[in-house]
Amino acid sequence: MDQKIIVALDAMGGDLAPMETVKGAVDAVKEMNVLVKLVGREEDVKRELAKYTYPKEKIEVVHAEEVISTDEVPTMAIRKKKNSSMVVGMQLVKNGEADAFVSAGSTGALLTGSLLIVGRLPGVERPVLGTCLPTKNGFTFLVDSGANVDCKAKYLEQFGKMGSVYVENVFGKKNPSVALVNIGAEKEKGDSLTKEAYELLEVSDLNFVGNIEPRNIPFGEADVIVCDGFVGNTILKFAEGLSKTLVDIIKSEITKGAYKIAAAMLVKPFRNVKKYFDADEVGGAPFIGLKSLVVKAHGSSNAKAFKNAIRQCVLFKEADIVGKIQDKL
Amino acid sequence: MDQKIIVALDAMGGDLAPMETVKGAVDAVKEMNVLVKLVGREEDVKRELAKYTYPKEKIEVVHAEEVISTDEVPTMAIRKKKNSSMVVGMQLVKNGEADAFVSAGSTGALLTGSLLIVGRLPGVERPVLGTCLPTKNGFTFLVDSGANVDCKAKYLEQFGKMGSVYVENVFGKKNPSVALVNIGAEKEKGDSLTKEAYELLEVSDLNFVGNIEPRNIPFGEADVIVCDGFVGNTILKFAEGLSKTLVDIIKSEITKGAYKIAAAMLVKPFRNVKKYFDADEVGGAPFIGLKSLVVKAHGSSNAKAFKNAIRQCVLFKEADIVGKIQDKL
Repeated sequence: MDQKIIVALDAMGGDLAPMETVKGAVDAVKEMNVLVKLVGREEDVKRELAKYTYPKEKIEVVHAEEVISTDEVPTMAIRKKKNSSMVVGMQLVKNGEADAFVSAGSTGALLTGSLLIVGRLPGVERPVLGTCLPTKNGFTFLVDSGANVDCKAKYLEQFGKMGSVYVENVFGKKNPSVALVNIGAEKEKGDSLTKEAYELLEVSDLNFVGNIEPRNIPFGEADVIVCDGFVGNTILKFAEGLSKTLVDIIKSEITKGAYKIAAAMLVKPFRNVKKYFDADEVGGAPFIGLKSLVVKAHGSSNAKAFKNAIRQCVLFKEADIVGKIQDKL
Repeated sequence: MDQKIIVALDAMGGDLAPMETVKGAVDAVKEMNVLVKLVGREEDVKRELAKYTYPKEKIEVVHAEEVISTDEVPTMAIRKKKNSSMVVGMQLVKNGEADAFVSAGSTGALLTGSLLIVGRLPGVERPVLGTCLPTKNGFTFLVDSGANVDCKAKYLEQFGKMGSVYVENVFGKKNPSVALVNIGAEKEKGDSLTKEAYELLEVSDLNFVGNIEPRNIPFGEADVIVCDGFVGNTILKFAEGLSKTLVDIIKSEITKGAYKIAAAMLVKPFRNVKKYFDADEVGGAPFIGLKSLVVKAHGSSNAKAFKNAIRQCVLFKEADIVGKIQDKL
């Protein structure tokens, strides 16, 4: 029997909502066997939907009056704004009316709400935020990319396991290699957390390949890289800032006077360079270890990003990642 | 009275030793009021020295038979190789026969030896490794860039103070701004370490400007940025790897077929881009908080880098940084 997967999408989340959220949903239902529940101000969402032709039975609108903004204190916002698109969306998941939830809204509110409303999977110490970090030859899956600070070694071991299951089943990489982010290659290097985590990962059933030094992360030497959320978020955000700075410096140098012509010839190659770092291809960062999947889409997500976030949800459900994670832990 | 400053230089340390170490010493004594003691195999060092004309009274050779390699276990190497260029050089500092020591040899051995032989300054919890990280408009001084893991908040406060004194007196930046590396801009963000360190830095006499998010580090928003050595080393090494990867990707894209001509026209601007990231301009990472200065030069240092490392030592001594740090703590 062909049971349809239901994904709730926060229609109001992100800089380009509701235009791009709605378009992403429309594109998704045309490609995938999925029912998308667009959660947000009915009037706004329906106005956007009216622009498109699509199989009507595959999109529903669920009204939510309020919106949580990115500058609100997460816990307060989740508690007070019961009628926000984010809270209503997660309630759908909690009540079994959706299999997964996607939002490009406030990261803090989404993570807090996920824990409070969707809830942790039994046996999971800390759900983990995974982000695809672009590398020379594809990407590496960074867990934790910012959900958990002050971690214990046991958490890191679980991050590795959950990351491995996700990458294998959602991104289709067989027996993914898992490495521990550390400031030295040898086993005895690092701080007390990484030393202890190494011991646990080494004896686990993962395809553990040892420490990865931060210098080697961009070379794509491992499919999954494990660290605490402070280090992971530092890597992720520093990568954004540094890439932007480097490209700015290069652009400013090559558009000076005599080089303008050469620079103009290079518009296309530079566009290809940008593709290496195209976050929209993946569509968001999954928050893994909850009773269902929640995907945090980037604040600047476009329709393609939302469509791909929905695809992650579909693959997650189809592959029964929840069951596989429980088996693994 | 014009008292000459004496700098001991590990003539055997680094990939390009002793050619570049000796040339760096020769260039330094021509420019600065300094006596350089070249420590290493006398025969090798003298053979290099014979290539140059320089004021003979400003360079001395101190024989040391052994060399510590980068693959040796630091503590063992320092303990066993009493006649190595590194140990002999640090002994000169300990005995008052040199004011500072520069080496491009094994980082681990140098840090270990610094603590064991040169020794901590009273009142300093942990000496800190400071590294100039290139930014859009110059550089930011990263403390700690890798000497201390498992830090306490009190250490981070001292890193800020020592970094501030160093940047003000050696790099000539008046009342330098100091920021705490953290994964959120607000005071209450971060892990337990950064939250506690924030409290200490806030009430210190530093020009503390709050948290700096990793995304903003390359924009050069603060003169000194403070973090524990695990995070600092991660930032430093990841920056190296990512810059190299980005430049490789850009190069491979723009040298494809039709773009070759345009790329050829851009050799000079790309050389200018490289200048932004020229570590040789600074000459090495000072290990601050010891009884004297020890500078870790990069393994691939050339003569210019060694000369500039020697300059750091001269400025350090002239400005009495040891006294200023003791006042500050």
